[in-house]
Amino acid sequence: MNKQISSINNTYIRQLVQLRDKSRERKKSGVFLIEGEREISLAIKGDYEINTILFYPELISEERLNKLTLQQINTIEISKEVYQKLAYRDTTEGVLAVVKAKPHSLENLKLKTEKPLLLIAEAPEKPGNIGALLRTADAANVDAVIIANPKTDLYNPNIIRSSVGCVFTKQIAMGSTTEIIQFLKAKNIRIYCAALQASVNYHTQDFTKPTAIVVGTEATGLSEEWLNSSDQNIIIPMQGEIDSMNVSVAAGILIFEAKRQRDFR
Amino acid sequence: MNKQISSINNTYIRQLVQLRDKSRERKKSGVFLIEGEREISLAIKGDYEINTILFYPELISEERLNKLTLQQINTIEISKEVYQKLAYRDTTEGVLAVVKAKPHSLENLKLKTEKPLLLIAEAPEKPGNIGALLRTADAANVDAVIIANPKTDLYNPNIIRSSVGCVFTKQIAMGSTTEIIQFLKAKNIRIYCAALQASVNYHTQDFTKPTAIVVGTEATGLSEEWLNSSDQNIIIPMQGEIDSMNVSVAAGILIFEAKRQRDFR
Repeated sequence: MNKQISSINNTYIRQLVQLRDKSRERKKSGVFLIEGEREISLAIKGDYEINTILFYPELISEERLNKLTLQQINTIEISKEVYQKLAYRDTTEGVLAVVKAKPHSLENLKLKTEKPLLLIAEAPEKPGNIGALLRTADAANVDAVIIANPKTDLYNPNIIRSSVGCVFTKQIAMGSTTEIIQFLKAKNIRIYCAALQASVNYHTQDFTKPTAIVVGTEATGLSEEWLNSSDQNIIIPMQGEIDSMNVSVAAGILIFEAKRQRDFR
Repeated sequence: MNKQISSINNTYIRQLVQLRDKSRERKKSGVFLIEGEREISLAIKGDYEINTILFYPELISEERLNKLTLQQINTIEISKEVYQKLAYRDTTEGVLAVVKAKPHSLENLKLKTEKPLLLIAEAPEKPGNIGALLRTADAANVDAVIIANPKTDLYNPNIIRSSVGCVFTKQIAMGSTTEIIQFLKAKNIRIYCAALQASVNYHTQDFTKPTAIVVGTEATGLSEEWLNSSDQNIIIPMQGEIDSMNVSVAAGILIFEAKRQRDFR
């Protein structure tokens, strides 16, 4: 017999709302909320530890639910009102999970290939851009994504949503710019900063060696610290009226030029 | 002496609010609203006809305003309340313009180069994606952007905003998929559809001839009609857990591969 919660005033449910809405709560508790069957499946596949599954039985069949809860996961049946209170998406999947956060430290990063390709973003802000970067990173199967001086935690519901779950499929590390540069230098990974100063056109460079492609924000670009540690600054030649490109589009162009040079191996 | 409007109940101001919010009103009246100095400048540069400039003098200096109104444009001074009523962005630029729409018909499209490169999107929906596509098109200086079976008008405030004004810098045509395919065939432009069926990897193709790169929506891809008219379907090899990429990122990768092959000329 499943545990059941039908009141939106239930203490646990109120905690989950906080967890969904507040980065601080996620950090304090070390858990976060995932909505949707696909996203939960990807988190399980990505070795995330699921604490609890909450489901609204009118929207998810027992069969589909069982696929998510094979490992004897704690399940709670919730009422329509509770589901609507917790859900942040305009979907009708009927399932949410409370999941344990991963550390995402540089020390835990395992580079399994000889000539890794890394995507690094400094202080990205918009969840939509972070989601698009993670989708690109997944599609290109980069060895890892590193976020420098993060402005937000990874488990923001809008990042999970806009990444369509890619936040769970890749190795992602976070750290200060200083730590990350030390890490890259120690591993002899070449640093290519997307930046105008003393730059060359991206397609003239050889990205087949161990490579980190580093992008900043659209508003302010990369910090001095990155520029001072850059092996080579690269640009995408701009030929329009406005020298402006969405950061996730620019990262996609750079990463896939590296992939092309590597014959998509 | 400038004309002045200080009441948000003024009939003209109420019409402008409708213009901002409703595609139907824009179509009916043939004019639309632009907010922001840069966007208005780009529209003037792009040969858009400005009917009226509205400004809130506390936020824009006379000098900056004069730069926008060189051609004896009709100006109206508005109060803070009216400005706040009309502004849709979280900015403080203090200036809006009422601008005449362009036709955007295929017949008006002038392809000035011998081997044009066109970006075509079928039925794109999200203003943010359309804006990012237009930024990419501007940066790559493609000969034109064509939108097939449009779901929205181009002058949606969110498209103008997310394109950072690139909606005014490029030749943009709209039409039905049928019309556009006829247009391309008549001009011997090769059609490369981003689609899985019978596709080859994008980087194996020669994009140096007259080329149209055609992308569909993330949800449903391209219509049968495009697939039946495709000279070659192309894909970006996907090597992740999730075969998913933001449509504007995918378009950027494809367009810039064409640019690379053309040596960015």
